Amino acid sequence: MLESVDLDAKCSKEDYKAAMADLDLRLGVLQRNLKDAGIPVLIVFEGWDASGKGMVLGRLLEAFDPRGYKVHHIAPPTEEESLHPAMWRFWNRTPAQGTIAIFNHSWYRQVVDDRFDNGLSGFALEAAYERIRIFERNLAEGGAIIVKFFLHISKKEQARRFRKLGKDKVFAWRVGKAEKRRHKHYDAYCEALESTFEETSRQEEPWTIVPATDERHSILTVARTLAETFERALARRAECSTGAVEFAPRHSSPLDGLDVSVRLPRTEYKQRLPELQEELRRLQYLCYVRRRPVVIAYEGWDAGGKGGNIKRMLRKLDPRGYEVIPIAAPQGDERTHHYLWRFWRALPKAGHFTVFDRTWYGRVLVERVEGFARSGDWMRAYSEINEFEQQLAESGAVVVKFWLHISKEEQLRRFNERQSTPAKQWKITEEDWRNREKWNQYWEAVSDMLDRTSTAYAPWTIIEGDDKCHARVKTLQTLVDRISKEVPALSEKDA
Amino acid sequence: MLESVDLDAKCSKEDYKAAMADLDLRLGVLQRNLKDAGIPVLIVFEGWDASGKGMVLGRLLEAFDPRGYKVHHIAPPTEEESLHPAMWRFWNRTPAQGTIAIFNHSWYRQVVDDRFDNGLSGFALEAAYERIRIFERNLAEGGAIIVKFFLHISKKEQARRFRKLGKDKVFAWRVGKAEKRRHKHYDAYCEALESTFEETSRQEEPWTIVPATDERHSILTVARTLAETFERALARRAECSTGAVEFAPRHSSPLDGLDVSVRLPRTEYKQRLPELQEELRRLQYLCYVRRRPVVIAYEGWDAGGKGGNIKRMLRKLDPRGYEVIPIAAPQGDERTHHYLWRFWRALPKAGHFTVFDRTWYGRVLVERVEGFARSGDWMRAYSEINEFEQQLAESGAVVVKFWLHISKEEQLRRFNERQSTPAKQWKITEEDWRNREKWNQYWEAVSDMLDRTSTAYAPWTIIEGDDKCHARVKTLQTLVDRISKEVPALSEKDA
Repeated sequence: MLESVDLDAKCSKEDYKAAMADLDLRLGVLQRNLKDAGIPVLIVFEGWDASGKGMVLGRLLEAFDPRGYKVHHIAPPTEEESLHPAMWRFWNRTPAQGTIAIFNHSWYRQVVDDRFDNGLSGFALEAAYERIRIFERNLAEGGAIIVKFFLHISKKEQARRFRKLGKDKVFAWRVGKAEKRRHKHYDAYCEALESTFEETSRQEEPWTIVPATDERHSILTVARTLAETFERALARRAECSTGAVEFAPRHSSPLDGLDVSVRLPRTEYKQRLPELQEELRRLQYLCYVRRRPVVIAYEGWDAGGKGGNIKRMLRKLDPRGYEVIPIAAPQGDERTHHYLWRFWRALPKAGHFTVFDRTWYGRVLVERVEGFARSGDWMRAYSEINEFEQQLAESGAVVVKFWLHISKEEQLRRFNERQSTPAKQWKITEEDWRNREKWNQYWEAVSDMLDRTSTAYAPWTIIEGDDKCHARVKTLQTLVDRISKEVPALSEKDA
Repeated sequence: MLESVDLDAKCSKEDYKAAMADLDLRLGVLQRNLKDAGIPVLIVFEGWDASGKGMVLGRLLEAFDPRGYKVHHIAPPTEEESLHPAMWRFWNRTPAQGTIAIFNHSWYRQVVDDRFDNGLSGFALEAAYERIRIFERNLAEGGAIIVKFFLHISKKEQARRFRKLGKDKVFAWRVGKAEKRRHKHYDAYCEALESTFEETSRQEEPWTIVPATDERHSILTVARTLAETFERALARRAECSTGAVEFAPRHSSPLDGLDVSVRLPRTEYKQRLPELQEELRRLQYLCYVRRRPVVIAYEGWDAGGKGGNIKRMLRKLDPRGYEVIPIAAPQGDERTHHYLWRFWRALPKAGHFTVFDRTWYGRVLVERVEGFARSGDWMRAYSEINEFEQQLAESGAVVVKFWLHISKEEQLRRFNERQSTPAKQWKITEEDWRNREKWNQYWEAVSDMLDRTSTAYAPWTIIEGDDKCHARVKTLQTLVDRISKEVPALSEKDA
């Protein structure tokens, strides 16, 4: 793609002025239309050093209302960022509906640099591209527009610009060792870029290579491409509609034949619970030393005993090392972002535990049953969630998922108990009773979830929950087993 | 305070169980009452190494609903944090109304450590305490409850606990060099702590020294203190009401006799504007190299020309180095936090520029005039704002504030022009016309603002704005002058 670009492309001052006067107005109107339509936009600027990214970006911003965009300058990951999965820092920066996120450098910078500086290749390189594809596809299918620019100049032109910067004390520091090294290996970088463009150009998120020798020409190319892309997206949005689809009715379920009444004698509970808590406490420090994060997902029927179960699990842990994230219906910023956004943000850093009290599975449970998500959206979610959890596992996380299962009769008993106990009344609401009426629909949704998202890297464990003692010991035992299996114990060497 | 603590205090298992069963229920109810009352709570845990902070905190959390609290573990500042004013990272973590922020270590840790490790003393130490007092007073006067615990054990007890930890491979790393050094200088730390308690104990935010030799006793003390503090605060809230007060009518104003009609010939404008833009571009890099942040505050009448003025100011700057923060009526999280919270969060890091398009002065302008803030609240805001800006200046920031002043006639002309120009209609709303009717009340508020918040470290510059060319050149010139004066130019040495 780089070879076929006409680097001599130019634009006269008069043509530029006339065209930009029009484009400034058009982009201003389009920004307001995108805002009204609730469409999030990601604009990526990549390009050679000194290709004028900052200048093009600065000029472009003049067309936009600052209340509607945010510019993100992507540097190498900070220590905090490097303790999270690779795409964490980009998910954190995804735009809300109706707003524009502009990336000066992006998720591409690191991949290309890592090929040269850290020998990224083979399967690891392929995985890095796959993460990018998943990220962009997730957002695009969630309704976002993604526009990607690469500002292209020749090696000779770059040398000329470096010399000019070097002559001025105020700017000289901008051409450092890394810039000089990249310049030296210009041709090799060209190859790496070409393969990057190939790996990551879908019809929905194509690359635009901008000839950037002439400043006016490059500004105009960017502004025009944006205006046309926005116009197409708005037109598409207007004609888009999806019909409802459903899975075929199921004949069996992973929940079939489950004995929810299994009990653990109270005396045994009193002995095993503290033992397991103590064991988990030691494993928490082991994970900390080994820098392995642990993601614990709790789902279950209303009154299934999640809260009490979580408290027992955490009882002896060091609070510096864990966080409980209770998930309710999305509020504020959560409503205007991709549904996975709030979960990405809350991921533990390496060595820490995060317990989610309800999770991203809301997409295929409550949002499906209540019709909050369109069928195309929740049907796509099974694979999106699998890809999400796979990225966690790849980053070293132990991913543990519990479904707290109780019988319909036991739920009724607990609801009634809550209603009649003053200290527990706040725990039961009208909504709980309404959900209970949809027990069968939830049963279908839970069965589909267990079928479609039990993976080798993130298996579900179904917890028989009518007896709370049994449930608590089984979750703790499962967690202890999983961590013990996945995180190597300390040996003499580690001392 | 430390000497008079009975370190032998103990609690029997039976007393503990009975008392905690009651306290768990009480704290659960109180948390829900605080939520309903919209009261934010900050709980600080400080204490000796191995005094059991984590354990006490972990047990305490069992009483609370995890949807209503967040635990913050305060480590030494990260690089990102150290590029901001000292209290930035704590303002970022202040709780929303009705929620609890629990600090495991806090703003106190750094001060005490700095006294030993970095020789913090004299005026610098006094300034550090003053920042803490301002922070806590701001929050308390904004309606927050602040409870501060110090977990106290004897030197001998600490030695015993260190030995025990050291014997277990899994825990041995917890007693490192810093812990041993602090243990060695236990007595000197005692003195530093005593003076810290003295400097930072107001009636509203007192310290509670918790004898922490006995685990049960320390948990009980903390739980009981919290319950009593919450109950008192809720009772106080119920009886609290403030009468309306007002300033005496003013006889003169800093706006008197201002010639808003001053003009700059178009030819001169065309020459000076690009010169100043280029000069500012160089100063931007200078600030970057010198790690000096710049905070630029724009206020002014509706249609005063802020937007166009800001665009001209930024025209040639490197977009990696600045951010424009447009301020509208608070939304979402902004509404449920202290009014200064969103401005603290948005502060530039060292070496960067932040332009606020409208600012924290909304508290004493629109919130005062429209009655969104009670009179006690906006009257207190003048000194709160001065203290805020002083902290910015102390951290090295150049603070520049512009009031864009136009005549009432010029405003009418611009309103009408917006209304009759299709491309500008979106810029004018009913609200603008309503504000215009209150011109005189705003005049009073602006005059008070200019009088009370023009300080040596953050002076106001009034910009005569009827002629946009004059206004743009004067703001740019003012900014260039201020930075040139406050940030030393590069010399041969710096090359």
